[in-house]
Parts: sequence; C-alpha cells; structure tokens
Amino acid sequence: MKTKNATEKTITDNTVDADILTYTVGEDPVLDLDLAVWDCMGTAAHVTMLSEMKVTPPVVTKKESAAVKAELANIVRLARAGKFVIREDDQDVHMAVERMLTEKLGDLGKKIHTGRSRNDQVAVDVRLHIKDQLLGMETEVYDLAEALVKFGKKHDRVPMVGRTHLQPAMPSSVGVWATGHAEMILTQTRNIGAAFDMNAFSPLGSAAGYGVPLPLDRQRTARLLGFSGTIHNVFGASMGRGEDEACVISACAQLMCVLSRLAEDMILFSMPEFGYFRLPREYCTGSSIMPQKFNPDVLELVRGKTAQVVGSLTAALTLLHAMPGGYNRDLQDCKLLYMKALATTRTTLRIMAKVVKGMSIDEAKLRAGFTPGVFATDVALRMVAQGVPWREAYHDVRDHLERLEDEDPDAAVAAKTHEGTTGGLDYGQYATLLKAGREGNAANRRAFAKCLKNLLGV
Amino acid sequence: MKTKNATEKTITDNTVDADILTYTVGEDPVLDLDLAVWDCMGTAAHVTMLSEMKVTPPVVTKKESAAVKAELANIVRLARAGKFVIREDDQDVHMAVERMLTEKLGDLGKKIHTGRSRNDQVAVDVRLHIKDQLLGMETEVYDLAEALVKFGKKHDRVPMVGRTHLQPAMPSSVGVWATGHAEMILTQTRNIGAAFDMNAFSPLGSAAGYGVPLPLDRQRTARLLGFSGTIHNVFGASMGRGEDEACVISACAQLMCVLSRLAEDMILFSMPEFGYFRLPREYCTGSSIMPQKFNPDVLELVRGKTAQVVGSLTAALTLLHAMPGGYNRDLQDCKLLYMKALATTRTTLRIMAKVVKGMSIDEAKLRAGFTPGVFATDVALRMVAQGVPWREAYHDVRDHLERLEDEDPDAAVAAKTHEGTTGGLDYGQYATLLKAGREGNAANRRAFAKCLKNLLGV
Amino acid sequence: MKTKNATEKTITDNTVDADILTYTVGEDPVLDLDLAVWDCMGTAAHVTMLSEMKVTPPVVTKKESAAVKAELANIVRLARAGKFVIREDDQDVHMAVERMLTEKLGDLGKKIHTGRSRNDQVAVDVRLHIKDQLLGMETEVYDLAEALVKFGKKHDRVPMVGRTHLQPAMPSSVGVWATGHAEMILTQTRNIGAAFDMNAFSPLGSAAGYGVPLPLDRQRTARLLGFSGTIHNVFGASMGRGEDEACVISACAQLMCVLSRLAEDMILFSMPEFGYFRLPREYCTGSSIMPQKFNPDVLELVRGKTAQVVGSLTAALTLLHAMPGGYNRDLQDCKLLYMKALATTRTTLRIMAKVVKGMSIDEAKLRAGFTPGVFATDVALRMVAQGVPWREAYHDVRDHLERLEDEDPDAAVAAKTHEGTTGGLDYGQYATLLKAGREGNAANRRAFAKCLKNLLGV
Amino acid sequence: MKTKNATEKTITDNTVDADILTYTVGEDPVLDLDLAVWDCMGTAAHVTMLSEMKVTPPVVTKKESAAVKAELANIVRLARAGKFVIREDDQDVHMAVERMLTEKLGDLGKKIHTGRSRNDQVAVDVRLHIKDQLLGMETEVYDLAEALVKFGKKHDRVPMVGRTHLQPAMPSSVGVWATGHAEMILTQTRNIGAAFDMNAFSPLGSAAGYGVPLPLDRQRTARLLGFSGTIHNVFGASMGRGEDEACVISACAQLMCVLSRLAEDMILFSMPEFGYFRLPREYCTGSSIMPQKFNPDVLELVRGKTAQVVGSLTAALTLLHAMPGGYNRDLQDCKLLYMKALATTRTTLRIMAKVVKGMSIDEAKLRAGFTPGVFATDVALRMVAQGVPWREAYHDVRDHLERLEDEDPDAAVAAKTHEGTTGGLDYGQYATLLKAGREGNAANRRAFAKCLKNLLGV
Repeated sequence: MKTKNATEKTITDNTVDADILTYTVGEDPVLDLDLAVWDCMGTAAHVTMLSEMKVTPPVVTKKESAAVKAELANIVRLARAGKFVIREDDQDVHMAVERMLTEKLGDLGKKIHTGRSRNDQVAVDVRLHIKDQLLGMETEVYDLAEALVKFGKKHDRVPMVGRTHLQPAMPSSVGVWATGHAEMILTQTRNIGAAFDMNAFSPLGSAAGYGVPLPLDRQRTARLLGFSGTIHNVFGASMGRGEDEACVISACAQLMCVLSRLAEDMILFSMPEFGYFRLPREYCTGSSIMPQKFNPDVLELVRGKTAQVVGSLTAALTLLHAMPGGYNRDLQDCKLLYMKALATTRTTLRIMAKVVKGMSIDEAKLRAGFTPGVFATDVALRMVAQGVPWREAYHDVRDHLERLEDEDPDAAVAAKTHEGTTGGLDYGQYATLLKAGREGNAANRRAFAKCLKNLLGV
Repeated sequence: MKTKNATEKTITDNTVDADILTYTVGEDPVLDLDLAVWDCMGTAAHVTMLSEMKVTPPVVTKKESAAVKAELANIVRLARAGKFVIREDDQDVHMAVERMLTEKLGDLGKKIHTGRSRNDQVAVDVRLHIKDQLLGMETEVYDLAEALVKFGKKHDRVPMVGRTHLQPAMPSSVGVWATGHAEMILTQTRNIGAAFDMNAFSPLGSAAGYGVPLPLDRQRTARLLGFSGTIHNVFGASMGRGEDEACVISACAQLMCVLSRLAEDMILFSMPEFGYFRLPREYCTGSSIMPQKFNPDVLELVRGKTAQVVGSLTAALTLLHAMPGGYNRDLQDCKLLYMKALATTRTTLRIMAKVVKGMSIDEAKLRAGFTPGVFATDVALRMVAQGVPWREAYHDVRDHLERLEDEDPDAAVAAKTHEGTTGGLDYGQYATLLKAGREGNAANRRAFAKCLKNLLGV
Repeated sequence: MKTKNATEKTITDNTVDADILTYTVGEDPVLDLDLAVWDCMGTAAHVTMLSEMKVTPPVVTKKESAAVKAELANIVRLARAGKFVIREDDQDVHMAVERMLTEKLGDLGKKIHTGRSRNDQVAVDVRLHIKDQLLGMETEVYDLAEALVKFGKKHDRVPMVGRTHLQPAMPSSVGVWATGHAEMILTQTRNIGAAFDMNAFSPLGSAAGYGVPLPLDRQRTARLLGFSGTIHNVFGASMGRGEDEACVISACAQLMCVLSRLAEDMILFSMPEFGYFRLPREYCTGSSIMPQKFNPDVLELVRGKTAQVVGSLTAALTLLHAMPGGYNRDLQDCKLLYMKALATTRTTLRIMAKVVKGMSIDEAKLRAGFTPGVFATDVALRMVAQGVPWREAYHDVRDHLERLEDEDPDAAVAAKTHEGTTGGLDYGQYATLLKAGREGNAANRRAFAKCLKNLLGV
Repeated sequence: MKTKNATEKTITDNTVDADILTYTVGEDPVLDLDLAVWDCMGTAAHVTMLSEMKVTPPVVTKKESAAVKAELANIVRLARAGKFVIREDDQDVHMAVERMLTEKLGDLGKKIHTGRSRNDQVAVDVRLHIKDQLLGMETEVYDLAEALVKFGKKHDRVPMVGRTHLQPAMPSSVGVWATGHAEMILTQTRNIGAAFDMNAFSPLGSAAGYGVPLPLDRQRTARLLGFSGTIHNVFGASMGRGEDEACVISACAQLMCVLSRLAEDMILFSMPEFGYFRLPREYCTGSSIMPQKFNPDVLELVRGKTAQVVGSLTAALTLLHAMPGGYNRDLQDCKLLYMKALATTRTTLRIMAKVVKGMSIDEAKLRAGFTPGVFATDVALRMVAQGVPWREAYHDVRDHLERLEDEDPDAAVAAKTHEGTTGGLDYGQYATLLKAGREGNAANRRAFAKCLKNLLGV
C-alpha cells in the first residue's frame, strides 16, 4: 500500500519542474512540522492494532510493534525539542517519519503501513492536530474573556455613553461594555465545541476510502487515540476531510468577526476625540515627531486578519463546492487553509488579551461624553414608572431638554438594576462560566495526553 | 420607548423617495410574514412579565395582559391561516401587529411596549424563528439521510467502482456510496445543533442594548419563551444579533457543500457514459427531440444554490467585520441573509430526498465499470495477508495484471469485512442514529409548542 | 429548436411540486421584466438576419420579418409603459414574448426561433441589459463624483485634520477629503469599462453552444445589435455567460467597497464628538425623544449593502468554480446575482449623491480638531526646506512641542502647494475628466438607442 | 519624515513579543524580496526629482543624486542575481535598501527620504511590481491560449460530442472545444488590462496621504517611472492602495475560474470512461500497483488553487469594507493577498500550458461517444432548411430515431459552417489576436524597461 501512496503523493518523475513542485508540495515542509507528533501517535495506534490483529502469520508481531513505538517516541521527543526536520526529498511529514523509522528499523519501518493509506493517515493526523489546537484556542478564549471581565469589574460602574448607530444613545458603563464583549466571545466556544465534535471521530482504517481486505479493528485504534468513536463508513471517512477543516475555519472566522468588533471599539474609543481608553504603549506604534500619536496598529491588524480568515473560509467552502466523492487532490489544500486560520485566530486571541490587560481608562473623558440627550429615555421611563402615561412623559421631556443638564451619569448607571444592565451585572456568573469552561478544557487535555502517554510513554 | 423605536426604524419624513424606501424597507414586508407568530409570542411573554412586575401603579394589569394575549392569539390564528397582512404603511411585522392590537385595544396596544425596544423585540422574534426553522431543517436532514440509507440497504452489495481523483481505484459498493453520503450529511447536525444553542438564550429585556430603569424580570420571559436562559449582558444581547444569524448561515453553507458533493456524484454517475444511476424522470428536464436526454437540472441547481449560500455567509461575515459595538442599522440586513439561506437549504434537502427516493440503479453498468486494475490493491493485500512480503506481492501483481481479469466484483465486495467497508456496513447503527435524532428533535418541538400553548393557548 | 428549449427550460411534467418550482423558476417572473425590451431587440435582429439568409425556401420572408418586428415594437412600448406582464404559466420573459407574438401572428411567432436556442437568446438579452445598466451606472458614478467635487470646491481650503490609523496626523482640508473620495470613485469607471467590454461581443448564433447547420450570419446580428463584434467560438459563447456576469458583479463589489469607505468617513465625522459634517436631516432617522440623535441609517446600510454585493461576487465565482464546459443549469443563477448587484450598487450611488448634496460642514468644529501635534511634521519639513538637517529639525520640534500651539490650520493648508495637496488641487482637471466621461457615456447611449430605433422604430 | 515612518512601520519597543512580530512583520521578509528592484526604481525617481527641485539650498544636489543612483543600480544588480538579503532587523525591503545605502553613503542615504513617506514609497513599489507582474501574466495567458489554439487546429474537425448539462447534446469537434476555451481565456485579458490601468498612475509625492510643504514635482516622478500620470489627489493616492490590489486579485480570481473550467473538462474527459484525452504522463501521478491509474493531480489542484484565489479576493474586499479614509495598517495585508494571488495564477497558467501541450487525443473514443440522439437536432434542422415545417420535422425525427444510427459524426461536423461552429472556425483570427496581444505586451515591456534603464542604467 505504501508504494501506491508514495506515488500518489509525489510526482513520479524525478525531474519535476519548479512550478509543479510549488503547486504540489507548496508549504508542506513547513506546515507539516506541526503534524509530527500526531503522525507518530496515529502510527503508534495503527501498529498496536496490527500487532493484535488475528491473522496468521501476524502482519506485525508484538515485539516489532514495541520497537516501532520506541522509535516513534524518540521522534516525538525530537519534535518537542524543535529538532524534527523535514528534508527536501521527504516533501512531507509522513515521508520524514517513515525515513527515520526505516533508517533505524529497516523494512519494518515500511511494513507498518499495511492496511493503511496516505489518505487515512493524513486524516488522522489532521484531526488529532485540530483537537489539540482547539483545546489550546479554547484556553485563549477564556484568557481574553477573563481579561475583559476583570477590566469590567475594575471599572464596573464608571459611566460610559451607550451608543446605537455610533450616536450617543443612553447611559451605560465600562462594566457593561467590557463584559458584553466578554460574553460575546464566550458564546463562540459553542462553535469551537462543534468543531471539536466534528473532529472527534476516527477515520483510521478507511484506507483510501474503500477499506482493505484485512480484519482491521477500527474501534480499537479509535479508542487508543482518544476519539469518541469511528466515522463508520469508509467512504464517508475520506469525504469527511474537507468538511471537518471547514468547520474549524468557520469557528475561527466567526470568532474573528467578534474580535474585530471589540478591536474596532477599542480603536474608536482610544481616538483623542473620545479618549475613553488608553491603549498600552508597547502595543502601539508612535511617531517620535508626533508625540500625540499612538497608532493602534495591532488592533487595525485584527480587522485585517479577520478579513483573511473570512477569505480562508470562502476558499474552503468554494473548494468543497461540487467536489465529486472520494479523495481528490484539491482536498489537500484544506490543510494550509485551516492551519493558517487557526494560527491567526490564536495569535489574535493572545494579542487581544495582552492589549486588554494593559488598557487603562480616563474617567473624566468617559463622563465628559454624557450630553443631556443621553438621559432622555431614562428620564421619560422614570416618569412612566411613577404613573405618568408614556406620551405625556415623552412630550414633557422633549419640551424641556434643558432640565436634563443636571442629570448625573453615575446616578443613571446606578438606576438601572435589572439583570445584565449597568447596575445588574453578575460577575459571579462570569466567574462560574469561566471556571466550568476551564475545567472541561483541562479534562479534555488530560484525556488526550493520557492517550499519547499510553501509546508512546511521552 | 415605542415612539423612539418607530422613528428609529422608519425615516421621519413621510415623503421618502423610492431609493431610500428600497434601501431601508427592502423585502421586509414579505420576509416578515414568517415572523408574525414569533412576534406575537415574544410580545405575550413581555406583557405577562410586565403584568407581574412589582411597580406601583402597575405598568400593565393582569386583566390588560389577558386582553392583549387574547388578541395576539387571534393574530397567530390569522397568520397560521395565511391571512396575516403587512400593509405598505406598516413596513414591517412589528408595526403590523401593533396596528392590529391598537385597532382593538386602543392605547393599551402601545403601552405593552414599555421597557422594550424594537431592538430586543426583533432579536427575540429572530431567535424564535431560527429555533423553529432549525428544528424543521433537522427533520429534513434525517429524511434525506434515511432515504440514502434505504437506497444503500436496498442495493447494499451491488458492486460500484470506488474512485480517487475520479479515476477507478478499488472495489466498492452502492451501499458504501449511499451510506457514506448519508453519514456525512448526518455529521452536519452538529453544526445545526451549535446554531440552535447559539440562539437558545433570550435577549429580551436588553431594550436598545442598555437596559431600562425598570425592574424587568428577564429570567421570567426567558422561561416563558422556552429559552435555556438569558444573554446576561444587555450590550452583549444587542451585539449577539449578527453572530447568531451568521452561525445559522454557516451551518447552512457547510451542509449545502456536503449536498453539492452528493449532487455532483449523482450528475456524474447518471451520465450515459456511466449509467450507474437513473434519476427519476419527473425531476429531470428532457427534450422531446432528443429522447436520450434527461438533464439533471435540479441537481445542477443544487450546485448553484450552494454557491449562493456560500455567498450569503461571506456577506454576513463581511457585514460583521469591524462593526462597532451596539446596534447598527446594517445588522438588519442579516435577517434577509439568514432567511434566504435557511429557505434555500431546506428546499434543497426536500428536493434531494425526493430525487434519491426516485433514483434507481443499473446493475449491469455498475459491474461493467470494473476494469482489471481496480482489483490490484486488494489482490496484493490478499497475498500479504497470506504471508507474502508486500514488495514481492506488489511486483507479482504488477507483472501479471492479466490475472486480474478473472477477478469478480461481487467477491471483492464480500472480501472486505472490517467496520464500515463493503462487507462491514452496520445498518442498525444508522437506524439507531436516526431514531435518536428524531426523538431529540420531537422533544424539542414539543417543548417549544408547549411554551406557545401556555402563553397564547394556540 | 424551440420545443427543445422550452423543455430544457421548464420541467416537463405539469404537476411540478412547489419546491421544484421555487428552485427552477425562482424570482424569474419578476427579474425578467427588466429583460423584456432586450428580448424584443435580440429577436428583431435574429428575424432580420433570418429573412436575409440565402436559403430556399426562405426560413422567414422579409414581409414576415416586418410583421414580427411591428409586433415586437408594440411589446417594447408596453414594457416601457410598465404594462408588460409575465404570467405564471409563462415562467419567464422569453415565453411571455413568444406567447404574445403567437397570439397575434400564429405559427410565425414560433418560426422565428429557427436557428436559435434559449441559451443564446438569454445570453443576448443579458448582455444588452448589462450594457444598458452599466451606461446608467456610469452616469450615476459621475453624478456622485461631481457632487463630491462641488462639495470639495465649496469648502476647498477649510482645514480638516488629516488622519492615518484614524489618529490625527497632518493638516489637510475638506477639499482634499472630498475630491480624494471623488477621485477614488472615478477610478472605478475602469472596472465598469472592463465589464462593458466584456459584454460587448455577441453570442447570438451560437445556439446551444454548438451552432446549427444553417448559414447564419452572426456578424450581421452583432452589428444590428450594436455589439463590437461576435464571440467567435460558439462553445466559448455559451461558456461566456457566467464570466460576463461575474465581471459586472466584480465591478459592483469593488465600487461598493469604495463607497463604503466614504460612508464610513461620513458616519464617523458626523458623530457629535467630531461634528465636522451635518448630514441632511431627511436621510437620517431621528428619535422624537432624543433630539440630539440623527442616526445615519442609510450610510450604515451602505456598509451592509457592500457586504451583500461582496457576497454576490463570492457566490458567482463559487458557482463558476470547476463548472464543466457547455451550458449547465446553475449558470442561470448568475442572472439573479448580477441583477441584484447592479440594482443595489445603482441605488447606493443615487442615495450617496443625495446625501453628499445635502451635507453641510461646521467650520468651527473642523478647526477645533487641530491639536498642536498635527503640525509637527510640517514644521520640521519647513525647517528642512530652509536648510536645517532633518535630524536636527526633528529634535528641535520634538523638544519644543509647545511652540506648535501657535500654528494656524489655515496657514498650514495654504503652505502645501504641490500637485494634489491642500493648496494644489486642480478642480479644472476634475471638471475635464467628468466632461469627457459624460460625453463618452452619451455617445455610447446614442449608439445603443440608434440600434434599437433602426431595428424596431422605438 | 523618515523617522516617523520607521516608527510607524515597526513597533517602538525593541523587546517585541513573538505574537506581535508575527502579526506585524509576518511574511514581509520573504515577500518583499520581489519588491527590491521596484523600491530602487521608485527611490531613483524620487531622488532625481529632489535634485531638480528649485529650493535653496537644494535638498539633494545633482552629484548626490548620481551617487545614490549608482548605489541603487548596484542593489538592483544584486537583486537580479538573487543575492539581495532582507535581514531580520530590517523587517522589510525599504529598511534593507536604506541600510545598504546608508552603509555606503552615510547620512545621504537617509536624506533622500525627504518629502516622501513610507506610505507613498510602498504604494509606488507595489504598483511597479504589479505592472511588471501583469505584463508577465499576460504573456502566460497568450502562451496557454496559443497552446489550446494549436491543439484545436491540429485536431480541428475530429468529432467530439457537444454537451449541455454534461449530457450528450449535439455534434461538436475538438477544434471547437479547444478554441472555445482559448477564447474564454483571451477574454480575461480585459480584466488584466483594467488592473494594469488601475495601477498605471503614480501615487508618489502623496507622502502619508496629505502631501508635504515642499514643491515636489509629481508629474516628473510619474514620467520617470513610466506611469500614465499621477493620482492627482494625495488623499486619494493613499486610499488607492487597497483598491488597486483588489482589482488585480479580482482579475486573477476571474481568470482562475475560467482555468478551473478547462481543468474540469480535462479531468472529466480523461477519465477512462470517456478516454477522449490522454494527459501527459509527467504531469500525472500514477500508482505502481495500479497501472491503469493516472491521477490528474495538477488539474485537481487547479480547482483547489482557484478556490484559494477566490478566497483571497473575498479577504481583500472584506478588508476594504467600511475602512475609514487615510492609511490604516490593515491595508498592509493586501500585499500578501495580491502577491499570492498573482503567483498562484501565474504558476497555474504555466502548468496548464504544459499540460495542454503534452495532451493527446484518442480519435476512436471521441467518435465512439456519438450516440444517435446527438444528431437529432441537426437532422430536424436540415429538414427545416429544406422547407419542412419545424413541427413536422420534429415529429418525424422523434418517431424515427432509428434512422439516426446511420448519421456520421464527421459529416455532422462538416455540415455546420457558419461563423465559429465546427466547420466555421477561423484560426487566422486567433493568430491575429495573439499577435496583436503579444505586440502590445512587448511594447509595454520595452517602455517599462526603458524607464528603469534611463533611471539606473540597468
């Protein structure tokens, strides 16, 4: 099977021209470094199962299996130390691992591919990598949300003009602004969860999408690798590839859109004309000649990166559009798309957390934003609560706007007390949510690490 | 509050020009018909809560609340009978319902808007509508998957060439092909579930995104409407709008991509050059002069509609990109985008189910597709299982391809027996999955209907 | 040929279900109203050519041709009066025109379709419609650019802070701001021109993409219809459909992005915190209770509509992606996409022109925006121009920022005099550009109208 | 000015963390290598103009200008030899060139930046690079079109079934198929032309978007660099950046869609079930065990790369959507997007040309595709041409399909003679088009090279 896959992957002729090489190999030698650990893990599960398979003679003996796994453990250690190398003639991680195994173990290094195709091998690597990445991303989501919640709690009732259509509308607070964004970001963990579930089933044993005439135990490898189960149908397993990656990119794109809205608010409200927020100096670019200038470069780049991830999602879905069943080579390009989308989104989360943590406020400017009209609705509603019919209250306020000049932002902030408004934020609820989220995440990480430990002892 | 919202929604000047009208009202009068029931439901919950609110004097009495709900029930009945009308001067469903209430109840019809803004009113309507639509869509997903599973079971072991790169590759079966597609489609229910969860929290009581100085009980309305809870933060509730709709459109776009791949397979394999499948005559367009011609128009349109839904997702995410916090008018355009995406996806699901149900196979042509090379890998692996080293087996097969001419497709199909391959499909597993899915769906529907019943008796 | 096309277009069976009808007919009955004139024009050219075709017996006599054209002229008059109707059983414009012709002329009404397919008929209609629409759009581009140039000229040297990264950066002027946007908008006429050229070649005579065994004179019909020539290859003509529409949508999407940037600037600088611009009251939505509130709804919707047109472009390109050669039914969906994109873009252009025309400025607030730092670069460069080395000038300015407080915005505006900056705007150049553009547009319109006049006398 | 821009570009603090570095510098050190020549050319024009500027004392003397240009010429030579290096502490091409100049020329190396900002410097580099790339791409378009035309001419009248809806429809030929695709590809030069024009105007002298208080001669630098003129407005020049790149990406995306359709046809018709085309062995991947397998990997990747370029267009337009006026940092990300889109499209063009050149046909299989129904329309139309009414001809053919079995594909191909169909292809017209296109391209290249020669003698 191996031979077939090697040639399926690479161009047969050795004198491949540069364009074809760019086209077929592309950025694989760099991207694939991130797959090294997962390629070893997947291979370890496969060889374990092969050694247990009841055929005579055995495809791989228990002893051979142990030898292979010892070598795979070495490769994982190399990879973790940043010393794993994909050579130019390897082209990808799979060939690099195979070369290293063969150098040490000879023909055994190739025998372990029995009953496996490059297709299901990559599919497993990608799913393990995605699961690991999503667990990391989830933590970063919690970190950013926590930074915002802390920021909100610290400045909870500091008045801040609430806007609709960007125009000043009603009294609000820094607490509401910050936790509102935090809550929107936390909401996106649902998409991350869906993407995690979408990648939680094992394609291993589907070979090139049509199985093999060998009694593979697909449930066994699924369990060894910590999957929730198998993708039952082998053809489905081969088609699942693009869909799974698209789901990950979609979660990233939606999250990035939420982050870009936070970034936009921070860009706007740190303009000197508002001056509500002071961004941390080290995340801005200044100009030695214009001391007033602190350009929010990284926040602008959040907008730009959001556009890039949206573009990656479009690319992934366009790629899948009307693709015939079975493995097609263009599916391979999904790897680049999801890897870049994940990396960009995770970097953005980390950067945003740092910027939020370093951000301070200017209370005077926040209060200065309260023009009389901002109080109008609240005052009218106060009258309604006291029994004045709405229409009468409304006319009265409209005709005497001058009265609103004495209104106090802090009083307005305190006056709204129902759930989730300026005077009714429940920080305990956010703490609970974050705690539960982090615990779930940690449990998933432990389970995942345990599988790797069980398989390779690393 | 009502007055503010009316003017926030419509253009103040009455002599609005046609361009502005197209721009601001757009297709609302048609689209909003689908929101009528949900607008009544949301209003019923709000007025119930208002009547229980402990303020003196009460904003709305229990008796007034009952009168309003009786009238809302009438409107729901009208809507169900297809007789609900949005007049030109209503512009949208909210004004239409309000007009009808005011005609019957006078000022009370307007009083019930106390403590509510057009923003949270629309947000509730949209979420209820989305939940209802997703429950409907989920059923249609099960219907299509079931049709495919039945098709697969009926023709389970009929040999069909398995392809990679569209080229004949290995023996497979109609059963594997059909249930593979079914499984991929079922996988997408995870995205539908995420979209459902994303819309399962109540924004009601957030008003224009900043709450009101009234002791609203947001948990109460959330429970009355069958939500899992509230979006705690009022500002978050107003920002959640676009994100929720984007999540729905994303689920639709990913599902459509999966469907387009099924459609593409059906288009290809019903070409006379393959002739594997015969599409039902009534879903094809023929040509009286070319009797051989049965154009798979609807399947081609599945590809086209997929592109449209991908475009809608791009539009939604582009719209959200870098939008400042708080309500902005462009958010309103998300309504059109999600409604069209849902409608298109649901129609596609129904059409595909019909086409699959009417599709038949041509066993002779399916078998005729087996060229000798298709058996090569299986034969070599058979030798490996008998102890021949892979390399030797491979050379032997390659040098004696003529031997493969006697290979039998049916035997090859039977020879692969591990999980999920030609001889190892577990139809019971699919039946179980479908049953569990349908039961969960039915329970959600019942809970939803019960809320409406409790509120309005309809 | 006709019979074939009718069945190719519609579903053969009369008892078509609702889903299929939505799917296949969709919004055609409404969209196609805009094609009525062009369908008549295309048919007139075809029948004229048929009547000149040297075959014995003639397919259509000169007299028959005249009769048909007289009837087509009547239909054009109906359409222009808004009285052209597409009945439910017509489904599209082509069947409606054919029905009307047949009612008056009997079999002759059908005979004129000899040598033509529905495919090339639609392709001609769409191209004529696009050319007409693009000529209209081009005028609207000039109108908006002119409105901006006038606005700039009126307030030419009124100081306005120039920004980078949204932060105050250097002295600029209202003139520079307004004509900068105008110039960017005018630049987009290059894309409109490319889209026009892309649609300037005739597909007529390509039939279903493979020509016919009749001596059609394709150059003749191309000339009669005012095309620059033919798409020579008949297969190319059938494939050109989607590409041509995509090019139009691309021009719209790029233009919309430019317009959305203008809209964003207007939204930001009309916020009370800046107050540079006052938007015309009639294009804003206010709130009777918040007199300070003028929500820039239409400008926000420009952002939203931009997202929609970007989505339409994605849809069109996704649709074309990997589509096999020859006519495929999904190509039909391009019609909806380009029509909506054009309509949205044109409405946006008209609305923006109105808003710009009604916009006024607040000079005091514009000048108030000048903080000392804004002058720093200019002052340092002034010193450089006087011979001070840059590094010395820079340190001097940085260490004595207090000196900048006496700097005068108007002087700074006047001091920059090179081409295109505050003191160096050449309004004559814009006038010349607009004049040349409008003249070219008028010439194209005249040529187009003349073709229609020559063919049908209307 | 320089100092400001350096800090605008880089992060002030030296201890920048890795995330920020990834975010802000990204792939610049690699991407920017392609800008080295153009950065030198732009600087040469600027310094020439500075040396001619009538200020006392001169900013740069003629002698100094000559010294700078001599050094720039050296850098161009280095770059052409592949020896230009961007160090880690340079971060981008501009800093690298500046460092090299300063190493040789001391302070003069920095003085030449007087009156220029990093903004207009990059904008010039990008436009020169784009013009150069588009000229290269245009040639590759001609190469591919010519390969297709030659392929078509060689097999001109070899019968090939013409399809609609992928179903066999009417007689066509290899000539029609190949030149149809060629013509569609040539059509796309209009978009390339529009992108070229969009980048043919000089932004130099706009500085950071607001000009400088120095008498820069912007027309002079525009002429020196071979631009058609200037972007008059300095603010417009700074905003033009994203729009120009978007136009390039749009031209690439549309062209890629056309190429993906050709690739799809080649994938389909080289499947063994058709066997019309044999792809060149060296561009396929085979499988040593499955000798029948030649996977069209590169053609599948054309589909995948098309999706990527469509995604890049979405990203660029999303990025521009609602971006405020003036330079914003996210604009920088357009560089990555357009560079990758151009590189991918150009590689695709070259690969496709190679595959087309190496492709052969199987006449027997092409003829075998003709089933009787393919002739039906032609036969009926032949009867019509002989005077039989269409309806009668149609019934006659339909009722006697058996008669069609004697129809001859070659005769059918010969029988259609009007312009652009099987018997009416004018290869001379394609030759003329290609010749004119190549000549125009060569003239543009010469003019461009002459500018560089005049400026730097290289």
